[in-house]
Amino acid sequence: MTTLIAAKDSSSIEDAENIRKACKGFGTDEAVLISILAHRNVAQKKLVRMAYEELYQEDLIQQFKSELSGSFERAICNWTMDPAERDAAFINEALKKETPDYKVIIEIACTRTSEEFLAAKRSYQFQYKHCLEEDVASKTIGDFRRLLVVVTSAYRYDGDEFDENLAHSEANILHQVIENKAFNNDEIIRILCTRSKKQLCSTFIAFRNMYGTTITKGLSTDHPNDEYMEALRTVIRCIKNPRRYLAKVLYYALNDLIAEEHALSRVIISRAEKDLNEINDLYFQRNGITLDSSVAKKTSGNYMNFLLALLGNN
Amino acid sequence: MTTLIAAKDSSSIEDAENIRKACKGFGTDEAVLISILAHRNVAQKKLVRMAYEELYQEDLIQQFKSELSGSFERAICNWTMDPAERDAAFINEALKKETPDYKVIIEIACTRTSEEFLAAKRSYQFQYKHCLEEDVASKTIGDFRRLLVVVTSAYRYDGDEFDENLAHSEANILHQVIENKAFNNDEIIRILCTRSKKQLCSTFIAFRNMYGTTITKGLSTDHPNDEYMEALRTVIRCIKNPRRYLAKVLYYALNDLIAEEHALSRVIISRAEKDLNEINDLYFQRNGITLDSSVAKKTSGNYMNFLLALLGNN
Repeated sequence: MTTLIAAKDSSSIEDAENIRKACKGFGTDEAVLISILAHRNVAQKKLVRMAYEELYQEDLIQQFKSELSGSFERAICNWTMDPAERDAAFINEALKKETPDYKVIIEIACTRTSEEFLAAKRSYQFQYKHCLEEDVASKTIGDFRRLLVVVTSAYRYDGDEFDENLAHSEANILHQVIENKAFNNDEIIRILCTRSKKQLCSTFIAFRNMYGTTITKGLSTDHPNDEYMEALRTVIRCIKNPRRYLAKVLYYALNDLIAEEHALSRVIISRAEKDLNEINDLYFQRNGITLDSSVAKKTSGNYMNFLLALLGNN
Repeated sequence: MTTLIAAKDSSSIEDAENIRKACKGFGTDEAVLISILAHRNVAQKKLVRMAYEELYQEDLIQQFKSELSGSFERAICNWTMDPAERDAAFINEALKKETPDYKVIIEIACTRTSEEFLAAKRSYQFQYKHCLEEDVASKTIGDFRRLLVVVTSAYRYDGDEFDENLAHSEANILHQVIENKAFNNDEIIRILCTRSKKQLCSTFIAFRNMYGTTITKGLSTDHPNDEYMEALRTVIRCIKNPRRYLAKVLYYALNDLIAEEHALSRVIISRAEKDLNEINDLYFQRNGITLDSSVAKKTSGNYMNFLLALLGNN
């Protein structure tokens, strides 16, 4: 369930005019921007952006970039983007780092539906004049590359059917890979990155039933290629229970346990209109504190106000 | 340019009724089927199939399967299908063979546009409840798998932009791969399977200018893994000049130089409404005989009549 409280009747022209007023003149009235944007859904935001472009011949996001700064600017811009455009931008940014941020890439490739991720790939091509897969391939090496190219390339089947026999036989293959510590085996990449999510969940259950342990535990042994192992586990976690994975990312971000600075706003912005409510519940169950309280403790100013508004606080 | 001579004004209801008449009763009037279907374009065929289903509660293709046989049945059924449905079926069939027919898979992945191939992947999921990539991955092994998974997964950028510096640097990488005979190197797969076709053509030209030989010649050295090398060359040929590649497939098929029995009808049916005219010209330039004459020599009966009609012979 969404945490977004979207306005029932909003006028995109009025919104555009009010945003213009808030941006022009001395300083920027951030409170006005929050009061409008944090209460508009995808379709409404799209219309506001079109109206703004029509009225002022300027792209709303460019406007924000020139007026705002820091985490607030970033959050407002990302939120104003279309989800596919935003996911493409997240991946592009992750690839631009000196060491590409594989976790962000896997998170987006594996927690979106096949159609959502395909839309992100289309948008990536439109924005960057390259395909996402070629940039992933040219900016990574070795086992990582093999994993990331397949995980971002495959257009997974999204249906509900799965095959229990296949789940058993592939649980067995995965077990052999783990037993032999052959973690860069092509089989593990093939199974994790091309099978449908329903099929994989069935394989993970079969694995637990057959071997009395979870596959992520099996992949937690000491191994020289630790980061790659962590990437495999990330794929599994994102597929097995994307909400739990995202709740964990939020916890890590709010407790300075990950270096990646944008995780907090990425997850909140990506899920506010989808299932942030359920993620919030999982967060509370695990940490005994609500996401809102953690955000309020950790952040401040306009950035805090904006995130809290997206979390459903008026 | 198309070789198809499509009827200017056809009625899908009348077509469906005439097909029904030709199929029912004693025997089947194949000439009627040819006279209708070989002169309908994609949109017209779609409407006829819908009208047939509406009128007789039967799928037209199932009807043909029960009435016809052999190469003619196959050709009529494939031609009646939507192009995406047909490509998905070709790949599914290629994967079902004891040794998957990698050339068919590469031909379809690399001679279609990105959007056409994506449509085939969607149709594959719809028809077989699996994603194409997972079936490719589970039915192939080793270097072949690596190549085929990436070639079928990547959603290549289809735009016209290319980067000459990149072309030079990647021509150099490919040359090193060839020099070191490291043909299963990930770099060659990455470059051939994820870069846009325009970028690759620029890389192939750079390669020839820099090293005085074509890259396919460089990949023609003796090597224990011959089939895999041939697969790499097939990818290159399909991207460099798809029409010339398809003209060659037709030549091989018409001269019993390939084991794969369905190549002739696959290429004619896939291209009749696109560029079979140009393919025909290339065929003539190379072989000094028109495609029509070769088809007339090699085939016979209804199958011949149907293919010749698709080739523009009334």
